[in-house]
Amino acid sequence: MIIDCHGHYTTTPPAVGAWREAQKKAVAADPAHEGSRGQIEISDDEIRESLEGAQLRLQKERGTDLTLFSPRASWMGHHIGNAHTSRFWTEHQNELVRRVCDLYPENFAPVCQLPQSPGTSIDASVTELERCVGEMGFVGCNVNPDPSGGFWTGPPLWDRHWWPLWEKMCELDVPGMIHVSAACNENFHTTGSHYLGADTTAFMQCLSSGFMSDFPDLRFVIPHGGGAVPYHWGRFRGMAEDQGWDFDGLLEHISFDTCVYHQPGINLLVEVVPIENILFASEMVGAVKGMDPRSGQFYDDTKIYLDHARVSDADRNRICESNILRVYPRLQVGRARS
Amino acid sequence: MIIDCHGHYTTTPPAVGAWREAQKKAVAADPAHEGSRGQIEISDDEIRESLEGAQLRLQKERGTDLTLFSPRASWMGHHIGNAHTSRFWTEHQNELVRRVCDLYPENFAPVCQLPQSPGTSIDASVTELERCVGEMGFVGCNVNPDPSGGFWTGPPLWDRHWWPLWEKMCELDVPGMIHVSAACNENFHTTGSHYLGADTTAFMQCLSSGFMSDFPDLRFVIPHGGGAVPYHWGRFRGMAEDQGWDFDGLLEHISFDTCVYHQPGINLLVEVVPIENILFASEMVGAVKGMDPRSGQFYDDTKIYLDHARVSDADRNRICESNILRVYPRLQVGRARS
Repeated sequence: MIIDCHGHYTTTPPAVGAWREAQKKAVAADPAHEGSRGQIEISDDEIRESLEGAQLRLQKERGTDLTLFSPRASWMGHHIGNAHTSRFWTEHQNELVRRVCDLYPENFAPVCQLPQSPGTSIDASVTELERCVGEMGFVGCNVNPDPSGGFWTGPPLWDRHWWPLWEKMCELDVPGMIHVSAACNENFHTTGSHYLGADTTAFMQCLSSGFMSDFPDLRFVIPHGGGAVPYHWGRFRGMAEDQGWDFDGLLEHISFDTCVYHQPGINLLVEVVPIENILFASEMVGAVKGMDPRSGQFYDDTKIYLDHARVSDADRNRICESNILRVYPRLQVGRARS
Repeated sequence: MIIDCHGHYTTTPPAVGAWREAQKKAVAADPAHEGSRGQIEISDDEIRESLEGAQLRLQKERGTDLTLFSPRASWMGHHIGNAHTSRFWTEHQNELVRRVCDLYPENFAPVCQLPQSPGTSIDASVTELERCVGEMGFVGCNVNPDPSGGFWTGPPLWDRHWWPLWEKMCELDVPGMIHVSAACNENFHTTGSHYLGADTTAFMQCLSSGFMSDFPDLRFVIPHGGGAVPYHWGRFRGMAEDQGWDFDGLLEHISFDTCVYHQPGINLLVEVVPIENILFASEMVGAVKGMDPRSGQFYDDTKIYLDHARVSDADRNRICESNILRVYPRLQVGRARS
């Protein structure tokens, strides 16, 4: 089985965006706006239509089986509005992902976003994680290390602010993919520099602080091939040796996905990162939609790169299946529920 | 000749740090503190001593000839104090680098830092660049894309704020290495994530805005192997094609250095980036001081990786010499002066 551990519902029916735009408008007019959940009216047929020509078609064409599916990352927008804004929006988005997985239980397994909101406690995220995993069979969550949207004004991942979430993730045995949302800072391009910078930043927070050793069961997935980390593997290993940081110990907690959109990048990833720390992913339909004119293949068809990389069939299977089942043990449970 | 285009004076005699600490103390007590330049008393012997056992010894041991030498990047600290703070400190640091190059004209050529200061115009940097290049034979400058020190609250590189500097750099025919300083934001580790994130961020600002095409002679060097850029070459190329950005046109303005501290990273760099866009560098003595226990070689001895990379001798010479002379045409002038 080929599991893609990183997919977002980027093709939602128009009613989703419309609901969010109305909410954004209300909270722009009144920053204390609370509002209510309300309804987002979407039929099952609309959901099917939004996926059949996109993610489902591409799964079939590319030969992947199951996608770990979460709400659109760039739309999480934790910096927008207040705790209520984030909560109502998050609940809708997660329930929509649950519906997708109920409609296509063979194709998708649910991963939730969290209702983070700058300057508020992490408790709301703990509550939503419990709801999603405990009541709705989710298998993981996305954790935004910078809910300020590119100003990095919140506490680093090693801060006690996060501990209730780390404890709940350990208790529920679900990993977190470290994934920022859209940048509202014009210095950053959301998918070009903010995502990759955040990946590297989060890894470095974990490495330099060593806090993950206090949470033996805590697991993070660093997406987008780990940002700059594998390319600078020697830099990070060397810094760790200079500073006495436990690099190898960290690798018991951290995996990297394969969202690197060219052959030499994937070659480097599988060469330097231990195979057990690599999880197959493509993030389609995502940051790069086009086809490489030189190869005639889609940039984000990462399966092709992995097929051509120097890894044994056994290792390829680990990357595509057993590593992911190890990091996301609830995957079996989540699927069985449907 | 093997030119290392990226070295900082990280081993300055104690009087330099002491002067700076006194200045920081004064401006911490009074944010409007202006102070005066004053003197930093250092003998030529102290300078010699600070280099003979470090950069000069390593040049000899590793077989490199000439280092483009600039003030310690993490000490630029543009976020500290005000415009006066930054000006006096910068003048001292640049003059010290000039002294180094006068003492060792065969070994070092000078690159200046700029007296950037958040919320102030770029004019002071233009003035200092003119002084350094016009009066003191400097061959390039370091440009900090985030003088806020990790909060990214200033204008992006495409903003008109920067234009007087870009115009002066074109007029003087000197390139700028894009290099942030220490992060004062606890989310970032200075050399681990802030440097690499800034490299990627700056590249992306240039790519998405296309502003460099308005300055035909403007040249940037992205250090630390280009941050995450070469590893994600397909991502950036694909995004550029999706968005209609001129990726190939940008490469007429941008080069990447070879500060990547392991063999697979350098292999990837020379495989994906056109040879004419690669400049040899090691940034020693810098972020990683130790030796790889597996190879018995220093992590930052990038010459070894380049020697073992799949490039022809002709291409290796371009990376180590002719590309650098093309990007830094004043290198001849700067050396002749001494």
